[in-house]
Amino acid sequence: MDGERLRRQIGFLVEVDKVKRILRQTMAIGTDRHENDAEHSWHLAVMAVLLSEYLEGGRVDILKVLKMVLIHDVVEIDAGDTYCYDEEAAEGKRERETRAADRIFGLLPRDQSQELRALWQEFEERNTPESRFANALDRLQPLLLNYHTDGRSWQRHGVRSEKVFKRVAPIADSAPRLWEYAAGLIRKAVEEGILEE
Amino acid sequence: MDGERLRRQIGFLVEVDKVKRILRQTMAIGTDRHENDAEHSWHLAVMAVLLSEYLEGGRVDILKVLKMVLIHDVVEIDAGDTYCYDEEAAEGKRERETRAADRIFGLLPRDQSQELRALWQEFEERNTPESRFANALDRLQPLLLNYHTDGRSWQRHGVRSEKVFKRVAPIADSAPRLWEYAAGLIRKAVEEGILEE
Repeated sequence: MDGERLRRQIGFLVEVDKVKRILRQTMAIGTDRHENDAEHSWHLAVMAVLLSEYLEGGRVDILKVLKMVLIHDVVEIDAGDTYCYDEEAAEGKRERETRAADRIFGLLPRDQSQELRALWQEFEERNTPESRFANALDRLQPLLLNYHTDGRSWQRHGVRSEKVFKRVAPIADSAPRLWEYAAGLIRKAVEEGILEE
Repeated sequence: MDGERLRRQIGFLVEVDKVKRILRQTMAIGTDRHENDAEHSWHLAVMAVLLSEYLEGGRVDILKVLKMVLIHDVVEIDAGDTYCYDEEAAEGKRERETRAADRIFGLLPRDQSQELRALWQEFEERNTPESRFANALDRLQPLLLNYHTDGRSWQRHGVRSEKVFKRVAPIADSAPRLWEYAAGLIRKAVEEGILEE
């Protein structure tokens, strides 16, 4: 095991520490602060461990899902967080993130660089059961947080229920039972007056 | 799939959001703030994905290691973070954490409650290759952060290199090459004057 290999791995691990500084629009429950990408990725990973039984069509490779959710946001170190309801910012997002993926995964030894970059790409393309499940979790988690922080992030951006329904719709392809749960939570948020109809 | 089961799973996922508020002594790199348990657990998980090749005696079950590091600190929601160099606070830690484990893992459906509680116990007991590796990462990660934040956490607590060497010693049982790296980093920190001899 040569020192250069370990040096590159540690270099990556130090670089990705920066996701702890990338703030998302969602708030951490019980706080007055925004959640960051490291916290969000941790939360998705715990969800992946607990909720895979709701997947349509049976089993997925959970280890692969975990790797995917753990690294899916590291490109935001260079590309920044794009708010899911901000259509202007969404332009050029793919290009910014592809450049970021080249640089950041490129810090690793070649085999690991290729593996993680491919997992990131797979997450983005949503063509496999694993990536559809990872994306479903990525839609469900902010809904949970928004509901449990009195919808402050929705209100700040004037987001209405129709947009939230559209945002969580992909959950239905992967895990209909979780989609049902999500839809119920959105309706509850509207009833409680924390999300506009 | 009954609603009660999903309700319990979501209840757990909302409860463990609180680890985002449990601050550790280490600082996040490039910031003036302490890292929290969610960020720390995410970082360990990424390390587990990348560094398992350094394990002595070959392969471990990486999925198990990941589950372990993802949930190893949720007991701190009730028990608080015990600073590893604080001998007074270490007293009663086991009892506090056991009660916390009963309550927090007890929120889950029985099968998942048992699985995650057993993984937490295994992490604490360090008797398996997976738990020794998870613990090795849990020793290496704060060292990386302390080194890359100019040793501020060491200085604040008057920690000397002998104590840090002792703290990272368990890495040697699991991954000698990573221990060598850790030892080198401690010596470098001393040379650079950010850690007292």
